[in-house]
Amino acid sequence: MQAIIKQAAKKLEPQLIEWRRDFHRHPETGWTEFRTAGKVAARLQELGYTVKIGPEAVTAADMMGVPPADQLARHMERAVAQGADAALIKGMTGGLTGVVADLICGEGPTVAVRFDMDANDIDEVQDLSHLPRREGFASVNPGAMHACGHDGHVAIGLGVAEILAGLKSQLRGSVRLIFEPGEEGSRGARAMVSAGAVTGVDYILGGHIGFQAQKTGQLICATGKFLATTKYDVTYTGRPAHAGAAPEEGRNALLAAATAALNLHAISRHGQGATRITVGMLVAGQGRNIIPANALYKMETRGETSEIDEYMAAEARRIIVAAAQMYGVEYDMIQVGGTKSGESSPDMRDRVRQIAAGMDFFEDIVDYAAFGATEDYSHFMSVVQQNGGSGTYFMIGADLAAGHHNNHFDFDEAVLAPGVELTALAVAELLR
Amino acid sequence: MQAIIKQAAKKLEPQLIEWRRDFHRHPETGWTEFRTAGKVAARLQELGYTVKIGPEAVTAADMMGVPPADQLARHMERAVAQGADAALIKGMTGGLTGVVADLICGEGPTVAVRFDMDANDIDEVQDLSHLPRREGFASVNPGAMHACGHDGHVAIGLGVAEILAGLKSQLRGSVRLIFEPGEEGSRGARAMVSAGAVTGVDYILGGHIGFQAQKTGQLICATGKFLATTKYDVTYTGRPAHAGAAPEEGRNALLAAATAALNLHAISRHGQGATRITVGMLVAGQGRNIIPANALYKMETRGETSEIDEYMAAEARRIIVAAAQMYGVEYDMIQVGGTKSGESSPDMRDRVRQIAAGMDFFEDIVDYAAFGATEDYSHFMSVVQQNGGSGTYFMIGADLAAGHHNNHFDFDEAVLAPGVELTALAVAELLR
Amino acid sequence: MQAIIKQAAKKLEPQLIEWRRDFHRHPETGWTEFRTAGKVAARLQELGYTVKIGPEAVTAADMMGVPPADQLARHMERAVAQGADAALIKGMTGGLTGVVADLICGEGPTVAVRFDMDANDIDEVQDLSHLPRREGFASVNPGAMHACGHDGHVAIGLGVAEILAGLKSQLRGSVRLIFEPGEEGSRGARAMVSAGAVTGVDYILGGHIGFQAQKTGQLICATGKFLATTKYDVTYTGRPAHAGAAPEEGRNALLAAATAALNLHAISRHGQGATRITVGMLVAGQGRNIIPANALYKMETRGETSEIDEYMAAEARRIIVAAAQMYGVEYDMIQVGGTKSGESSPDMRDRVRQIAAGMDFFEDIVDYAAFGATEDYSHFMSVVQQNGGSGTYFMIGADLAAGHHNNHFDFDEAVLAPGVELTALAVAELLR
Amino acid sequence: MQAIIKQAAKKLEPQLIEWRRDFHRHPETGWTEFRTAGKVAARLQELGYTVKIGPEAVTAADMMGVPPADQLARHMERAVAQGADAALIKGMTGGLTGVVADLICGEGPTVAVRFDMDANDIDEVQDLSHLPRREGFASVNPGAMHACGHDGHVAIGLGVAEILAGLKSQLRGSVRLIFEPGEEGSRGARAMVSAGAVTGVDYILGGHIGFQAQKTGQLICATGKFLATTKYDVTYTGRPAHAGAAPEEGRNALLAAATAALNLHAISRHGQGATRITVGMLVAGQGRNIIPANALYKMETRGETSEIDEYMAAEARRIIVAAAQMYGVEYDMIQVGGTKSGESSPDMRDRVRQIAAGMDFFEDIVDYAAFGATEDYSHFMSVVQQNGGSGTYFMIGADLAAGHHNNHFDFDEAVLAPGVELTALAVAELLR
Repeated sequence: MQAIIKQAAKKLEPQLIEWRRDFHRHPETGWTEFRTAGKVAARLQELGYTVKIGPEAVTAADMMGVPPADQLARHMERAVAQGADAALIKGMTGGLTGVVADLICGEGPTVAVRFDMDANDIDEVQDLSHLPRREGFASVNPGAMHACGHDGHVAIGLGVAEILAGLKSQLRGSVRLIFEPGEEGSRGARAMVSAGAVTGVDYILGGHIGFQAQKTGQLICATGKFLATTKYDVTYTGRPAHAGAAPEEGRNALLAAATAALNLHAISRHGQGATRITVGMLVAGQGRNIIPANALYKMETRGETSEIDEYMAAEARRIIVAAAQMYGVEYDMIQVGGTKSGESSPDMRDRVRQIAAGMDFFEDIVDYAAFGATEDYSHFMSVVQQNGGSGTYFMIGADLAAGHHNNHFDFDEAVLAPGVELTALAVAELLR
Repeated sequence: MQAIIKQAAKKLEPQLIEWRRDFHRHPETGWTEFRTAGKVAARLQELGYTVKIGPEAVTAADMMGVPPADQLARHMERAVAQGADAALIKGMTGGLTGVVADLICGEGPTVAVRFDMDANDIDEVQDLSHLPRREGFASVNPGAMHACGHDGHVAIGLGVAEILAGLKSQLRGSVRLIFEPGEEGSRGARAMVSAGAVTGVDYILGGHIGFQAQKTGQLICATGKFLATTKYDVTYTGRPAHAGAAPEEGRNALLAAATAALNLHAISRHGQGATRITVGMLVAGQGRNIIPANALYKMETRGETSEIDEYMAAEARRIIVAAAQMYGVEYDMIQVGGTKSGESSPDMRDRVRQIAAGMDFFEDIVDYAAFGATEDYSHFMSVVQQNGGSGTYFMIGADLAAGHHNNHFDFDEAVLAPGVELTALAVAELLR
Repeated sequence: MQAIIKQAAKKLEPQLIEWRRDFHRHPETGWTEFRTAGKVAARLQELGYTVKIGPEAVTAADMMGVPPADQLARHMERAVAQGADAALIKGMTGGLTGVVADLICGEGPTVAVRFDMDANDIDEVQDLSHLPRREGFASVNPGAMHACGHDGHVAIGLGVAEILAGLKSQLRGSVRLIFEPGEEGSRGARAMVSAGAVTGVDYILGGHIGFQAQKTGQLICATGKFLATTKYDVTYTGRPAHAGAAPEEGRNALLAAATAALNLHAISRHGQGATRITVGMLVAGQGRNIIPANALYKMETRGETSEIDEYMAAEARRIIVAAAQMYGVEYDMIQVGGTKSGESSPDMRDRVRQIAAGMDFFEDIVDYAAFGATEDYSHFMSVVQQNGGSGTYFMIGADLAAGHHNNHFDFDEAVLAPGVELTALAVAELLR
Repeated sequence: MQAIIKQAAKKLEPQLIEWRRDFHRHPETGWTEFRTAGKVAARLQELGYTVKIGPEAVTAADMMGVPPADQLARHMERAVAQGADAALIKGMTGGLTGVVADLICGEGPTVAVRFDMDANDIDEVQDLSHLPRREGFASVNPGAMHACGHDGHVAIGLGVAEILAGLKSQLRGSVRLIFEPGEEGSRGARAMVSAGAVTGVDYILGGHIGFQAQKTGQLICATGKFLATTKYDVTYTGRPAHAGAAPEEGRNALLAAATAALNLHAISRHGQGATRITVGMLVAGQGRNIIPANALYKMETRGETSEIDEYMAAEARRIIVAAAQMYGVEYDMIQVGGTKSGESSPDMRDRVRQIAAGMDFFEDIVDYAAFGATEDYSHFMSVVQQNGGSGTYFMIGADLAAGHHNNHFDFDEAVLAPGVELTALAVAELLR
């Protein structure tokens, strides 16, 4: 089977590049992946997968950080204008752009693979030193750019889907492909888990192009120390007043936010592991001589474990509310992101290493890397592990034109086919 | 009548000095004026006044800043040891050391005079340059000293009482003498007003030796701009924890208090008049490496009017509570002092000026001074005025050895007899 | 002379209204009053005044809160497009839009009158209930509106100039007309005083339509309790860092600004008079998960006297700098506004009252009002008084469509002619 | 040699217990260990060691957290009264109570052992359930108690000294015994290292009774994750002022300290490892209505590595100074403690395990424990390691009556002889 998969992946390479470039050219940010998800869903249906979209894939009540309705509507129109199947994506109204696809191949375990689809809120650089620009596939959507490689992930996902569909008769168990919207900002996993994306899953795989593996030919088999995170947008609403004539009539939202910011940063360290707290943005007030009646701030906590992050988030919530009470202002606190911590399973790490060693592409195979940051994948993986399953997150090394989230970002497309091969092999192995 | 009063005051002078020195030698701080109040009550009974003490003079529930019970008991014992009538002062158990005495002289208005009795929490200087030490009447009570002249006020009160009792048949109306405990810290007036001290009063007089009138021969007829004030003691109780091993288990009372202190001082100014806010003392924590589980702070607000002070106090209470909530600590907030703002009545000012001009003692008679600080008398006066009465607060100039509340404080005893004369004349005039 | 002036003012009324509507239609905000100042300067030259503009009227180094150069250039072009004399206003390049005009009428005192010219940063309401819209003279300049009546003040100024020029032979002394730019935000007076606007002035007059006098027929002869003020824009520049991976590498400008805001508001009250402190706006940071490297805030202090305001401003400067040091960030602190406190002179108040009483327009003449806020006029007046002169600030009551600085603001044009009459009479009286 | 040492240790047991009880009865807190150090020095001289005390053992300029001179003098007198050799301890004047003793046994490596001598600032419980009380060796020094087992460490040190002196002819190299004062609060190591205590040392050993090894028979061979720490006492001195009359004249030390406390706790986390920050105590102000002119706080930082702690300490110093500048108060910042991080060397861990396995006392031998807190020993060890040497820190399990630093603390004396045996064996092994 190994040889068949290798050959199939090789043959798919031009198609993979074409897909990747198409997605790169039409980047869609979190919860607006109408065109991407539409293309993915249509293709998976063609391949014989049972495809769930809309409320079957995403629980609306658990979506975080969703753009306003008018913006969703505009992006949906754009998706149609850029070739999406209007009838199909109608089912994604409201930003329910997740896709879950099952290929049931008889009795056996269920193996899930997660692919993330969203682009970044970045304007892609437009000079000719940038390969996507030179080759004509730079972003045509202002304010959006695939600067994290998710375009490649989706292409790999479609490649894996095709190969596994072709092997259906040889597999025992089920393949579940999860195409996640809103990975950036840790917004998508919770709502897909709620809708059942990992229910019944025994093994889960996920990966990323680049990150700690920054050279083509490198592979990191397992990643851990994913920090859990919780993200809130907070608004305070006070009462304006003339700062000279009647300051006592005001309710000062700016000072409430300033006090919150200081005291949030003073949340106690935790004896059991690393924590983070950041108020990254604060905007308050309207004029120099008016008691500021409005304030908005964006903050996040992180923790080495989900428990530690929950300690941080609980402290933060208490402070956010108390700062409002201290200044007699109204508050609105919305969770706009959040994910669990994670650690890959050693058994899966070993499997990936063994498979990679058997391929002739990877020259530098590393067992493990500590991530020390956040990936929404860890939410899926930790739920699978809690239910008795196991999982891993690998990093496929690729030469990069610039760092992730940089407007010059680009990766070596030579890694697409090996990515497909590695992933398909890992799934097939588990379903033998 | 003027001549009679002048002569009587003159004759009383040695007695006034003796009284003053006796009270000076036995100073008693707020709510522990057992000996002083006992002496006063006994003398007023002898003079034929109807005397109220204990719960009839002071409403226990409205007393503020009362020392702990064991301290009260010790001071009561000391008072007996220093010559107080044990049977009489038993009625003052619990620190109810106010005295209210009425002399009813037929139909007519009621004229009240307030005298304050308490000493300061100061150790009197013990060197021979200090007259009370040289003359043998320096404080024998450690930690207590009459450094504000209240000893002189009580002596004047007894002198006025004696003269008016002698004129009883010539007066029409009622004399009410109010001897107030706990003036320092604005603690006594509220509880005496609750017990009825100024009920039915048409005119009220009060005064002070010194303050803005710092030379013998000076008189300020009326004082205003008494600031209202509210005083709280606040304690926070958190949870200790090892600062290295498990800081997250602590509840940090020190940071709660620090946040409260900062935000209290940031209470908005008031467009309608002056305000003050002070956290004057803060003690928190027990060791360098333990999350501090305890904090105590002493604070006060002031306002140009009672309404403005109430604005400040309401803001303060909200902040005090919210700071506790912010750090998840328990709070205890006790009002330990508070008084209303005040402004003397012009009609009373004019009366005092006219009387003073008719005496041959005052060489420099000033209409008015703005106080800009707090005197618990303003609480009595503002209630009288609210009920349609009028009042004033005069300052009897006296050469001073040192400023008020200084441990070298002493005043020229030559002002005692003129003080009696002025006060008795003002009352008699109103009851003619 | 009184009759002549009354008649002349009456005759000017249609012209006054035309002028006012022209200025209303073409509002120009602080330091961009090119068209207004150009029209004023041209007219005063025609009337025979010696006119100073540009550096002769305004010292560039003392201008505060000046818009960026490109904005000044754009507004200068707009002024020409809207009819300004391009050659004349070239002399105002850089925003030097003040005008000082002298009419020398032989030996005698110098009497100055101040008129302010700038509009507010407000979009004028465009519905037909609003008279300027209905009558076709609503603002044609987006983002600018005469919502404080300065359009009326300039019209009155031109009327006064015309009448006094006609009386030249009957006057003894000098008339000085000061047309001030950038009154809003207290930005213009300092730079005009530096350039000599009130040098040699013995009497100064200024006034305002509306404010405390909100009905046509009312007049307040003198105003006092102008608060002194100082205004700063502060920026902090730190160092960004990834909030998850390496927060210790950041320099947090947001927290520096939050600490500054809190501690600024905690500046101690002043025992000698009212103070104000406001941080009215704060913007910091760029993204949730980046240590914020930038912060901007706009703040101001006020004081009952110039000394008290200087106490506040000195405290503020120390805190602003120390907060930067606390977080290791760079700071930039620019004074963008500031004026002195003020109190009208009683002799001038009496003069104005007497003149007003002799006119047949004012039905309700009030001696005095406390302003309790800031007017840049007080800067001019206090310098005149310091040099031994005297001055007053009157308020000409007018029925208002809405409050000052409201986008529905409009005033009763019936007050223009009486305004001219009152002012011209006051000047003429002093130069008789 | 193993058998000889075992036998010698066994024989010493009664003496070890006697020593331990003598030291327990006469506890001496940091830098006042005159009697203890005197007894140790005298005994080591008898045994033939070259003994350094006073400035030869401790560099005065690097001592941290030294008590005031009068207290040192009093404790020195007490030491003499309790049997210390007055002539000998004179050399320790100023609290230079460290002892360094060398036994030179020809060519070979130098092996150091560190023993800490100081007691805790605790009153020992005085009820009969407490063995030291029942057996008559409870503390006779008020405010001091050996509640951390250092009495046992000193006894072990004397036992080790005696056994190694007896084996002198069989050893090749040098023994260096370091008796450290002021371990509590991390105060002693720096000043001993400065004086050369570990200069030329190739191997270093240290240990503790109890801590993570809380049962007799347990042994932890190596300890790591000692946190580095830095400790400051900070005082702020402002200017008092009457809070009602002239608050602006004050310089508020309480608010400076409150701001410092909050902002210290807000120091950013570090991406490379754990940090701690604690302001454990704060005392400020004198009276409710006086602007507080004094503040004192005690704080500490910790870091997973010395570098991380130095980051924390540098941040802290900047904040401490800036908070003083913000409020215009003077500051005094004294380092009163501090030590480096540490990690035992694997080679030494293995040696200790092997030796322990060869004894018949330890039933439960554990390789390693993470300390997660601070021990001044890590300062000595990290310097030795930096110079190319190696070291370890073992924990000798003992049944405890109560936790460390509890006033009921007591340990099973059965561990003393095995402690001597283990330590002497480890040294002898290295010097064979």
